[in-house]
Amino acid sequence: RFTTAGKLILTANLWYNAIPTQNCDVLVTFPEKADDYDVMWIYNRITKRAPQLQVTVRRHANIPVYAFYITATFENLLQAAEQLSMRKRLKQSHGGGWKEFNLEESKMFLNIENSNDFFTTRERQTIVFKMVEEIRAEHGDSVGRLVLIEGEPIVPKCLSKGIIKQILPLHSNTDLKKLEKDWVQAFLRPQPLDEISSYFGVKIAMYFGWLGFYTRSLIIPAMIGLLFYLFDTGDALSQVIFAVFNIIWGTVFLEAWKRKSQEYAYRFGTLDLPNNLVTEPRPLYRGDYQPSPVTGRLEPYFPTWKRRLIYCVTIPVILFCISVVFVVMLLCFKLQEFFNEHAPAWTVHFPKMLLALSVSVMDDVYKKIAVKLNDWENYRLEETYENHLIVKLLLFQSVNSFLSLFYIAFYLQDFRRLKQQLVALLIVRQIIGNIKEALVPYVMQKIKFYRMSKKMEKLEQQLLEKHNKGGDETEVEDKTMLTQAEVECQMKEYEDTLEDYAEMFIQFGYVVLFSSAFPLAAVCALLNNVIEIRSDAFKLCSSFQRPFSQSVRGIGEWQFALESMGNVAVMVNCALLALSGIFQKIYPGITPVGVVMVTILLEHLVFAIKILVEKAIPDVPEWIETELAKLEYRRRTAYMVIILYTLIRIIYMVSCSSLTSLIDK
Amino acid sequence: RFTTAGKLILTANLWYNAIPTQNCDVLVTFPEKADDYDVMWIYNRITKRAPQLQVTVRRHANIPVYAFYITATFENLLQAAEQLSMRKRLKQSHGGGWKEFNLEESKMFLNIENSNDFFTTRERQTIVFKMVEEIRAEHGDSVGRLVLIEGEPIVPKCLSKGIIKQILPLHSNTDLKKLEKDWVQAFLRPQPLDEISSYFGVKIAMYFGWLGFYTRSLIIPAMIGLLFYLFDTGDALSQVIFAVFNIIWGTVFLEAWKRKSQEYAYRFGTLDLPNNLVTEPRPLYRGDYQPSPVTGRLEPYFPTWKRRLIYCVTIPVILFCISVVFVVMLLCFKLQEFFNEHAPAWTVHFPKMLLALSVSVMDDVYKKIAVKLNDWENYRLEETYENHLIVKLLLFQSVNSFLSLFYIAFYLQDFRRLKQQLVALLIVRQIIGNIKEALVPYVMQKIKFYRMSKKMEKLEQQLLEKHNKGGDETEVEDKTMLTQAEVECQMKEYEDTLEDYAEMFIQFGYVVLFSSAFPLAAVCALLNNVIEIRSDAFKLCSSFQRPFSQSVRGIGEWQFALESMGNVAVMVNCALLALSGIFQKIYPGITPVGVVMVTILLEHLVFAIKILVEKAIPDVPEWIETELAKLEYRRRTAYMVIILYTLIRIIYMVSCSSLTSLIDK
Repeated sequence: RFTTAGKLILTANLWYNAIPTQNCDVLVTFPEKADDYDVMWIYNRITKRAPQLQVTVRRHANIPVYAFYITATFENLLQAAEQLSMRKRLKQSHGGGWKEFNLEESKMFLNIENSNDFFTTRERQTIVFKMVEEIRAEHGDSVGRLVLIEGEPIVPKCLSKGIIKQILPLHSNTDLKKLEKDWVQAFLRPQPLDEISSYFGVKIAMYFGWLGFYTRSLIIPAMIGLLFYLFDTGDALSQVIFAVFNIIWGTVFLEAWKRKSQEYAYRFGTLDLPNNLVTEPRPLYRGDYQPSPVTGRLEPYFPTWKRRLIYCVTIPVILFCISVVFVVMLLCFKLQEFFNEHAPAWTVHFPKMLLALSVSVMDDVYKKIAVKLNDWENYRLEETYENHLIVKLLLFQSVNSFLSLFYIAFYLQDFRRLKQQLVALLIVRQIIGNIKEALVPYVMQKIKFYRMSKKMEKLEQQLLEKHNKGGDETEVEDKTMLTQAEVECQMKEYEDTLEDYAEMFIQFGYVVLFSSAFPLAAVCALLNNVIEIRSDAFKLCSSFQRPFSQSVRGIGEWQFALESMGNVAVMVNCALLALSGIFQKIYPGITPVGVVMVTILLEHLVFAIKILVEKAIPDVPEWIETELAKLEYRRRTAYMVIILYTLIRIIYMVSCSSLTSLIDK
Repeated sequence: RFTTAGKLILTANLWYNAIPTQNCDVLVTFPEKADDYDVMWIYNRITKRAPQLQVTVRRHANIPVYAFYITATFENLLQAAEQLSMRKRLKQSHGGGWKEFNLEESKMFLNIENSNDFFTTRERQTIVFKMVEEIRAEHGDSVGRLVLIEGEPIVPKCLSKGIIKQILPLHSNTDLKKLEKDWVQAFLRPQPLDEISSYFGVKIAMYFGWLGFYTRSLIIPAMIGLLFYLFDTGDALSQVIFAVFNIIWGTVFLEAWKRKSQEYAYRFGTLDLPNNLVTEPRPLYRGDYQPSPVTGRLEPYFPTWKRRLIYCVTIPVILFCISVVFVVMLLCFKLQEFFNEHAPAWTVHFPKMLLALSVSVMDDVYKKIAVKLNDWENYRLEETYENHLIVKLLLFQSVNSFLSLFYIAFYLQDFRRLKQQLVALLIVRQIIGNIKEALVPYVMQKIKFYRMSKKMEKLEQQLLEKHNKGGDETEVEDKTMLTQAEVECQMKEYEDTLEDYAEMFIQFGYVVLFSSAFPLAAVCALLNNVIEIRSDAFKLCSSFQRPFSQSVRGIGEWQFALESMGNVAVMVNCALLALSGIFQKIYPGITPVGVVMVTILLEHLVFAIKILVEKAIPDVPEWIETELAKLEYRRRTAYMVIILYTLIRIIYMVSCSSLTSLIDK
């Protein structure tokens, strides 16, 4: 079942030299101390309730855990693809474009003749994963101490309870090498988004599409910011214009992204994903099992009024947590001020350390609370679940990232310190972030693999000695052979795009909120992002397990988050301009009431321009609209074509048989 | 062809006693001086290019004009309904709900057995109208001095050039009597929206649905306003709370309407109207004829960049017109002030009259310009065309209706006069409006009909005298008989819902903008609207020609207009509160800067609440989403059902024929 390379792997570059694992789309691993009985119970359930899956049980040699290697035959994959309404490309002769796969018309699909290439590894993994997820508990099922409710999905439930350790798809080394060459190392070339989408799935491709678009869009404010910085005449009016320009840029960028994301969604084939209620609920969605009003299948149902009741608890809890963070941070700032003035010099960094400590503790605690509350709110769809989690986490992140800046800008009104702080955040924090994100996991993994190979070296020595004393040669090979699957089990799991988006959201905040205080913000952001794209790519391609692919139509709630940031930016910039005394410079002798009035007027004017811009730029590009209309028209007429086809077939049949009967006569 | 009633009609109630016109769905009439040749040319084109239509040419006896009475057979209507993808209700046994009609599955549709009742009169008229509209010019066609371009629709073009005078559907007296009973006279019962929709079409039903919903929503602010007015303690804080409450009410009302409109659209069967590009373009849409990228049919195509170029002219022109109105009105106000102080008493009303005159002149001129510009902008769809016209007309209407109030509130800062003006506008203007709208056309029509019958009386006298001298008896009957069609030709055309919406839009503006100045605004609006609903209903049922039905998904651009009004209301109310000195009452000793700051704070707070409310209320009700999902699921599975059906049919056929051959053997 595994191609035996036979060579002992001793380098730290363990992964690339590992023996590729064949015939495995999805790997399920168990904890080291898993009960043999539990493992076999799950094995039995999978093979009995999903006989179309081929499951091989193995016990990994080096880290002694059980693992299921799961795959399916091409015929079974095709059948499942039809059930999942998976979209596949049509042949050019059949109009190209995407269509839901179905067996009856399979000949229309591109590459159907080639059973090895028809599905990409990602598609195979998705199909097998969905098949595994769909295995449901029956009445009386229980594993270990976990009693399963009838209809519950067995594998996701066991995963959430820790009975199964992880479930992961395997990397494909050939695809990965191509991605490394075309993406990670191709610094100045456009990203190969189609390749990314077909290897990692649409969600990750959409993130990188967005990141690329954002980075390109940053070129304009970066250039203007640089010019503004270099030829700073100290002219007050130009500062106002620069601030307004930055806000308008933010609005145009977000509107343009709406169009671009539709384009990407069309390109990735997810633009007209089915209605939410037609898609399957999240495996961990709880509720009374009822026949779905839509599909008639038995499905958990959780009434909306219950969720509203839950909101009555979760929203106050979240608000309370946020206010705690707010107060703790303010106290630390106050303490800092106090220490700056009254405490001995060596204690000056004490409040900063306290702040860092409390933020990191609160971060951990808050995240746990947010996830728990979000689980409790029990959303039906992965997408909604995630959107609500995003909002919860962003509230914390915003306070955490912007409170200190607001404190300096509006309470201390110290613009020099604001500028310093921004430079520190935009340069230092982001470089550290990149290191933390990409380098640390990579090094950690290297160390881990190095240790593993050391251990194996020892093992080999022992076995060789044993062999020399008259043992079996094959035992050496078998024990010291590392397979790709074993190596990837040890890699870190890629959590989600959430952290990556959050980082960029905060950076976008720095750029649009404080551009009037620090004109080079966009330049710093641009430089960072050029590196960020490749370091994120590097991270995905070399330090993490392959993630399961997810389909998305766009960037979801991030659009709303970024737009909100744009709106806050209008207010903050106007307030900053007012505080910096620019209006007094433009109209000497203006009264305080006048300053406030000019500020409001400017604010309302900018909001009005924003609304006009949003209204003037259509959300969907014209050509996409045409394509969608074509699709709809085809769908409407397809119906007629089928009826015609049926009629012709029947006439043919009848004439054939009458001919036969004639001949028979 | 006409049931001869034989009786001479001499009462003023001409219409109800007219001889009902049978076998006529759509009536086309020509001007009195129409050239016989032109009429016959058009007759020939219609009968040749749309042979499925049955056209009868008549010359009306009393007002000597040519008229075409157009109808079609049931079979032709069915065929056309399929081509138009008209939605019809399914039988309960086939799942109920709406489905696009098709002949193959015609058995599934409700009432198909009954050829008289299957289509409502409205549906028959719509189908025949579309068939008439679809008749296209061929190369070299020309009528009178009008040279038609190949592919142009003949009838709409002739209508726009005045060669055809009007094209109208006929009323159905039985339906109308039912509507009068259940709708016009049923003052306190809910409106029969389904009947309205099936008689007048979805667009008009949607207007009355909206008007009803708005009126019901007004009960809340009316009650609170009344309480506030009756128990006015002069407490400053409660005034602030009342103003904020009114704004939030406006937001909740608009959000709730979004949901309600989806419900109505579902009820009227227009919720999932096809994509814009699949629907036919407006008949008067110009452009080079090209095959449509979607349907492949030859269609006019007008590139978007050309429209953008046109915008570069139209937008400045509109803005210029608006500023002219603005300036003229301001000048009149200034003149009024001058006259009030310096001129003799008898000339005091002179500027008011000047204002009224100039507004009405400007209104006429502006409307003509707006329509011309909108025609020039050349929108593909009726819906888009209308939405852009709405925006253009609303700009003028807003200046016209609100400038004087703003002038009094913010320039003169005379709150007593503001209140008086509001009372005058809300009570006097609306009563006059109702009279003008409903009563005047009704009386005018009565007079017209009275004159007609007088004229006929004379004619009869003459004929009788002639007869007495030995003439033909039948001639008397034929000449003096008035048919329903002849009567309805003389009625006024119902322009559009646009004027009705505009009136309500301005009323909504009075309520939300100035609630803090005049708490009884909502009460006045409520009282007016209870009457408005029935007077609008009366107008439609008794003074106007029946309008052609139009399908809409909602209230279109009015939603945006009303939301914008809601946003403006936040600013205006905050400013009014600040000017009225309420904040000084709440915090005695507050500085002017403090007042402005509190105002901004309040404004931002209210906007924040508005955004939260908008975000918290989902736009689509849950049950509608379920219904849509069901529909989508059915569409997806329908495909499979058809394939299955085909297979079974084939198997049946084959087995039958093999049986036959067996028997033959």
